[in-house]
Amino acid sequence: MKISDIGEFKLIQHIATYLSKDLPDGIVGIGDDCAMIARSLQSIEKTELLTTDQLVENVHFIRSKNAAEDLGYKSLAVNLSDIAAKGGVPLYALLSLSLPVDLELEWINQFMTGLNELAKQENVLVIGGDTTRSPGPIFINLTLVGECPTRQIKRRSDARFGDVICCTGCVGNSGAGLKVLLENLSVDETSIPLIKAHLRPQPQLKKGRWLSQQPGVHAMMDLSDGIYCDIQRIMDVSNCGACIDLGLLPLSSNFKDACKKYGWTMEELAVTSGEDYQLLLTIDPNSYASINEAYY
Amino acid sequence: MKISDIGEFKLIQHIATYLSKDLPDGIVGIGDDCAMIARSLQSIEKTELLTTDQLVENVHFIRSKNAAEDLGYKSLAVNLSDIAAKGGVPLYALLSLSLPVDLELEWINQFMTGLNELAKQENVLVIGGDTTRSPGPIFINLTLVGECPTRQIKRRSDARFGDVICCTGCVGNSGAGLKVLLENLSVDETSIPLIKAHLRPQPQLKKGRWLSQQPGVHAMMDLSDGIYCDIQRIMDVSNCGACIDLGLLPLSSNFKDACKKYGWTMEELAVTSGEDYQLLLTIDPNSYASINEAYY
Repeated sequence: MKISDIGEFKLIQHIATYLSKDLPDGIVGIGDDCAMIARSLQSIEKTELLTTDQLVENVHFIRSKNAAEDLGYKSLAVNLSDIAAKGGVPLYALLSLSLPVDLELEWINQFMTGLNELAKQENVLVIGGDTTRSPGPIFINLTLVGECPTRQIKRRSDARFGDVICCTGCVGNSGAGLKVLLENLSVDETSIPLIKAHLRPQPQLKKGRWLSQQPGVHAMMDLSDGIYCDIQRIMDVSNCGACIDLGLLPLSSNFKDACKKYGWTMEELAVTSGEDYQLLLTIDPNSYASINEAYY
Repeated sequence: MKISDIGEFKLIQHIATYLSKDLPDGIVGIGDDCAMIARSLQSIEKTELLTTDQLVENVHFIRSKNAAEDLGYKSLAVNLSDIAAKGGVPLYALLSLSLPVDLELEWINQFMTGLNELAKQENVLVIGGDTTRSPGPIFINLTLVGECPTRQIKRRSDARFGDVICCTGCVGNSGAGLKVLLENLSVDETSIPLIKAHLRPQPQLKKGRWLSQQPGVHAMMDLSDGIYCDIQRIMDVSNCGACIDLGLLPLSSNFKDACKKYGWTMEELAVTSGEDYQLLLTIDPNSYASINEAYY
């Protein structure tokens, strides 16, 4: 069945069946002009976090290479990663889809299944959005609302001279996985975890929350465009320089194996490829040892 | 100059120059992973309103018929109308744009100018968003956050048997304006206000807030798809029927003149054409006279 077979109204009704049900009192999701969130009095100052990200067909994904279920998962994951970077708790999502009329309805079913898998896991309520026709490519826009205790926020601009630059996990896996997909390389024991890192990135929400509670952590952001690019964003707004010893980059054994096998320049790929969605942070040198010990 | 000439990073920096500046303490806009809104303790229960709407090239607009400045204005206006329908105050907007690389930068300048004109008028802070490349059409997605006193909200499902169906202003103007544009009809004294109603719809925020304070007003929503379609949305969730006397529809003299001139079926166009962004509401019959008197 195609979207053109059911029309826009039924499409919305259809998508609505995938949205969060049994919403708590005071919360209104799909079916009215707005999604609504009642806020009761709170005993501590909370900051609301709003973030939005687009995934565009033939720019961020290719339909033949990215299963719809993985795309649904990823469209939420990349936004969750922004919330993780501020040590926040994700709360509500709005999903906007612009879809070609000849798209198979099954694509949407799978997309929503993947999205809901992660939404359920992270207690995110998908409470609204918008659906329109696309004259060409699929456009996905997800907006996420979260919150965090105001005093814990680690800004990009909080890095200080002498800080230790850290990240929460291995870099380069996603970029290597993308290369395997685009170059039609062999799918084997080595490449499967890399492909998975690209198709289903894991937002570092728990680590982000723990790190945001440590006074020794100064600046924090998520790694979406690669360390080479993202560390400059921290430096730009913190008025610092950065020195990264490429020999100390955290790299997975699968990543190293793939680089050897296919002749990729390991360090270059590790720092320039994006979408790892680990957290990049800077830590007070006097706190580094204790944070590093408690963290592992 | 084209977008491809400056690259994505510079494009974001460029767009950032158009976003809200001098944000109040506790609010962080563009330049970090999330837009952030600190919420202090409040003395009354507030409900946060979230809404999002897309405008897609060749679906919602044609580049040769819609000036970029009008589109920027309209992309915010249609979201403001949703906030108006809940009697809310708009607060913050996130703007996502997906743009072809050969788009003239001047298009964006004009788009943002139009958007900011209305944002300034309604005190909306545009605090974030996302920008990506589009492989084809322009995609605009705007998410708006607002709030309203919880106890004043008029749900679509609040209509009751015997209510009077009302709307805040004339219907059909926008649809007639669209026809003038699409059919290349003469731009004259009669058609200019109709074209303007289509290109620059006026969200009914003040009327929405006043109406939401009236206990006699039951259901309320904004008219985006035309009365014929939208009254059914209220009826569906309120378990009521509706009877509309087509002779009592509020129609502008320009609309009537254009219908006569071009042989359009007046009542049909008035109820089936959308994008008027007036408010559609139902009122307790015992309150109707006093509300109607106080309203005008």
